[in-house]
Amino acid sequence: MKPSSDGTKWFPPHARVGIIGGKGEMGRLFRRFFEKRGYQVDIADLQTPKTSREIIESSDLVLFSVPLHQTVEIIEENLPYLRDDQLVMDLTSLKVEPIRAMLRSKASVVGLHPMFGGSISSFSGQTIIACPVRIDSQVWNRLRMEFEQEGMVVRECSPEKHDKLMAIIQVLFHLSTMIQGRVIRELGIDIEETLGYTSPVYRTEICLLGRMFAQSEWLYSAISQMNPHTPQIIDLIQAILSEYKTWITEKNLSALAQDFAKTRAHLGSFCQRAFEESSRLIDLSSALFRSAEEVKSS
Amino acid sequence: MKPSSDGTKWFPPHARVGIIGGKGEMGRLFRRFFEKRGYQVDIADLQTPKTSREIIESSDLVLFSVPLHQTVEIIEENLPYLRDDQLVMDLTSLKVEPIRAMLRSKASVVGLHPMFGGSISSFSGQTIIACPVRIDSQVWNRLRMEFEQEGMVVRECSPEKHDKLMAIIQVLFHLSTMIQGRVIRELGIDIEETLGYTSPVYRTEICLLGRMFAQSEWLYSAISQMNPHTPQIIDLIQAILSEYKTWITEKNLSALAQDFAKTRAHLGSFCQRAFEESSRLIDLSSALFRSAEEVKSS
Repeated sequence: MKPSSDGTKWFPPHARVGIIGGKGEMGRLFRRFFEKRGYQVDIADLQTPKTSREIIESSDLVLFSVPLHQTVEIIEENLPYLRDDQLVMDLTSLKVEPIRAMLRSKASVVGLHPMFGGSISSFSGQTIIACPVRIDSQVWNRLRMEFEQEGMVVRECSPEKHDKLMAIIQVLFHLSTMIQGRVIRELGIDIEETLGYTSPVYRTEICLLGRMFAQSEWLYSAISQMNPHTPQIIDLIQAILSEYKTWITEKNLSALAQDFAKTRAHLGSFCQRAFEESSRLIDLSSALFRSAEEVKSS
Repeated sequence: MKPSSDGTKWFPPHARVGIIGGKGEMGRLFRRFFEKRGYQVDIADLQTPKTSREIIESSDLVLFSVPLHQTVEIIEENLPYLRDDQLVMDLTSLKVEPIRAMLRSKASVVGLHPMFGGSISSFSGQTIIACPVRIDSQVWNRLRMEFEQEGMVVRECSPEKHDKLMAIIQVLFHLSTMIQGRVIRELGIDIEETLGYTSPVYRTEICLLGRMFAQSEWLYSAISQMNPHTPQIIDLIQAILSEYKTWITEKNLSALAQDFAKTRAHLGSFCQRAFEESSRLIDLSSALFRSAEEVKSS
């Protein structure tokens, strides 16, 4: 039985959401979200009274909130229980493969990627990327409004475009940070010591580095390992590094400076805006770090 | 004539400071600093009425505030005019080579590296690194107090230690940013488009990237090209990248995750502190970016 095109059964007060992986940080966050919006939420996780199968069988909306590197496998295990009158969604950081797996069911399919962690205090102003690949457009617009009414900014794109964007937004920056962290480790650098000699910009950079390493090694490793564009990014970085090394050992400062200027030209007016925005950010962070030092020394 | 060990002639009201490169942003900033502290300041630059030689001959303190990649050359040109009753200082981002050049005079020598740009609105809380390599310690302590009384945090270290620390604090992060910028350029990525899909962390990272490219290509290229430790850093990054590429193409997620966990162990308790500090920073930056968007769209 397919739902009518207004998707009545997918909305409160009767709609039932089943979250697979509901005990994780992100699962708990989206449980609160759906409950606040008036849905009846039930969860399955390791050691919950109900199994994934039971939860899926009793739900109108099914949300997979499981570790990235296990998502496809867990969706595939549950394919036999998904029906054509259901909507199935996931929350992982890649979209092509998880969506391909969900499309193998007969259910309606929306892939989601929240650009925030499970520890946020408010959805207000947070971006969520959505790939509404198989869903009635009226139903999707109504569901989209549920997110927007909690303050989220919903950005739609295709799964392919999503993974390509994430090769920059996530992989390029995460890989750099993983490498920086490992260089610091291999050279035996004491972070506390470097902080004594730092500029506010470095303090901000090293703080974002520490932030990443405070989080799940499986999440960050999977984001880089599983993105199909990662090998291309690595090849590019390696080629650039070889060229830089030649210029540096030959003391060819002009070549390096010209390369820098070419990138500036590509970035265009963004550079000046970024300079102004980052100046304000650095003023804020200097004040923040000063008060942290005062707390430490008091 | 060497000054007496209290260095009377190096301090106001009679002390005369000559800034070589006094028209640059940093030169102007330190001109204001010394004038505020009661010194008589005169400058030499391209197209100033007085030459470097005239300025040096009439000064008690000589400050070289010239582009990093020209510093050693400019110091060497002026060596014949420096006297043993003078104090000579520089402001560049590397310390071993500029200090070696200054030590070839008979003057007292202090190498300085301000960890801030010439556009700051206040010295308060800004770090300046000092290498007081040849100066009477009482005189140095009094000079150090001049900086501290304007709110600067003065950190002393040897020139060798300075350049080694900067291989991390500057080279590792600047090189990463140069590479990220070039990958973005080579892949033809539109930054404005990525900003629509971003998390606050990426927004902060890309903003710091744009900040660097808004500045001098000669400064940033020279910082990396001239640091003696840069080839070692590049070799390390290349080795790490090769290993990561193997793990990624072999889908060896555990190896990547274990590597991540090892770095976390090296960073220790800093990670959790960085997570907390960066959470506050990201809250601040989200608010800042939201207001920037509002200005843009109004």
